[in-house]
Parts: sequence; structure tokens; C-alpha cells
Amino acid sequence: QARAPRSRCLCADKGVNMVSPKLIEKVDIIPPTPSCGNLEIVVTLKNGAEPKCLSPDSKFTQKYLMKALEKRTLQK
Amino acid sequence: QARAPRSRCLCADKGVNMVSPKLIEKVDIIPPTPSCGNLEIVVTLKNGAEPKCLSPDSKFTQKYLMKALEKRTLQK
Repeated sequence: QARAPRSRCLCADKGVNMVSPKLIEKVDIIPPTPSCGNLEIVVTLKNGAEPKCLSPDSKFTQKYLMKALEKRTLQK
Repeated sequence: QARAPRSRCLCADKGVNMVSPKLIEKVDIIPPTPSCGNLEIVVTLKNGAEPKCLSPDSKFTQKYLMKALEKRTLQK
């Protein structure tokens, strides 16, 4: 996703609705700022692929974040 | 927070229970990995202060993330 032309948002659009959790290395949540009025979620992927914008609206995003907080540690 | 000595976690401890939302520039959520079995949440602050580890257990963290997803855009 190229940088959005007009505003200074990182994401040119809302982003994908889901990403394979196994591929997620890191999730960046960037609150709205004066220069970019949208909350942006940028996912860094393990396979070195281009980071992806993840839609804050999607059920996957909400479920993934809540599950991450609940699970917290790696099941041994 | 210095890097944890033994494991390769970023956070030496669970982190703080809350951070002033106005100071939050970015929230990094790092799922557990083989080298660090904990979910880690690292908050980058606007005032250029040292990034802080935020406790995934705290009510503030859960509420902040949910509100961020719900609010999504800057109220004009």
C-alpha cells in the first residue's frame, strides 16, 4: 500500500479485513492525529512481506486484539 | 525499561497499568514468540520519552484498545 497521496495517513485505504494470525509479527495501532484523522492499524508480517493495513472495522481485528489480550502467554 | 536480561523479551516486567491517552503516539502489540513467551505491548509516546511497556492485564489497556477501535476517527 503506497502512502496516501493527500493526507499524511500511512494507509491509502481501510486495509484488509484479516491477516493470517500465524504470520503476524507485530501490530501497530496508530491513533488519529491532526495530520491523519483515522485510526490506523499496520501489521508487520513474519515472512518479511510488505506491512499490511488492517481494517479497524473488521470483526477479525476486534477478535484478534481481544484474544491476544486474553491469551497473553504462549500455551506451552 | 531496560531489555529483559534472560529471555529476549522487550519488556523487563509486565509494564505500567496505564498511560495518558493524549501522550500515545503508537501502540505496538507483539504476540508471544518462541524467544519471548509473553504478549508485549509497547507504547511510543508523543513527548519523545522512552517507550513504555503497558500491562496487557490492565483494564485500561483493554478499554483503550476497544475505544480506539470504536472511535476510529478524530471527532471534528
